[in-house]
Amino acid sequence: MSLFLEDFQVGQRFTTGSVVVDENKMKAFAAEFDPQPFHLDDAAARPTVFAGLAASGWYTAALTMWLMVTGGIPFSNGTVGLGGEIAWPRPTRAGDTLHVESEIVEITPSRSKPQQGIVTVRNTTFNQNGEPVYIFTGKVLTFRRPQGSV
Amino acid sequence: MSLFLEDFQVGQRFTTGSVVVDENKMKAFAAEFDPQPFHLDDAAARPTVFAGLAASGWYTAALTMWLMVTGGIPFSNGTVGLGGEIAWPRPTRAGDTLHVESEIVEITPSRSKPQQGIVTVRNTTFNQNGEPVYIFTGKVLTFRRPQGSV
Repeated sequence: MSLFLEDFQVGQRFTTGSVVVDENKMKAFAAEFDPQPFHLDDAAARPTVFAGLAASGWYTAALTMWLMVTGGIPFSNGTVGLGGEIAWPRPTRAGDTLHVESEIVEITPSRSKPQQGIVTVRNTTFNQNGEPVYIFTGKVLTFRRPQGSV
Repeated sequence: MSLFLEDFQVGQRFTTGSVVVDENKMKAFAAEFDPQPFHLDDAAARPTVFAGLAASGWYTAALTMWLMVTGGIPFSNGTVGLGGEIAWPRPTRAGDTLHVESEIVEITPSRSKPQQGIVTVRNTTFNQNGEPVYIFTGKVLTFRRPQGSV
């Protein structure tokens, strides 16, 4: 299945598969991109606001992208984000099981380019307790179905 | 140097060091987190909106975090982001040299927790041509200097 601009409606919902947060991969990501003590070492993280080892928020963002790309909304031209709003309401922990629930919140056809538009999607990443760990409301560049295509 | 809430002023600016975008690392990131053809293969990327191999936006975000954590604003308690707005105005390419310029745009002391507040920072990641590839306006949890501390 491949979805074009005219296939979307506000209120549509999609759910991804899930992923278990691997502690070693989580720490390796932090070591490469966000080498702060609370993302690298549980003992160092205890006295911080995280009160224990926490994933880099960008690791949660990256895992969310993986869930979306491999099992989320099948945008016909791929998932090309222009930007959006992000929030990390609570930490992701090693061993958490994450999945993403997405809802179409706005559809804006382009005024100057009739073949394209922007679909705004609110993607909420939940842990195994049903608690949101990350919310990404993103604007996705989306194309209309080419004439003659089905 | 370590900066506390009372050390910040709106309009303060900071600049990070720079990093060269390595094609292999860029593709490895995409393979792990954002396996879409335009992030993995130049030939596949040519006919897309990217018109050639482009980094995953989340790789640009992750490199930006690395630049900020290793050479950006020295927040006393680390860089703990609560969320914010992001935009990718143009693609990051393999071989690009990126750096980040940060400006303090808002300082909001907490009403309920006198020892903390939120510093809002607009971080713009530029390529070697001075073109912005990523803008992250983030809210950073920031603490006041503990009494007796210098």
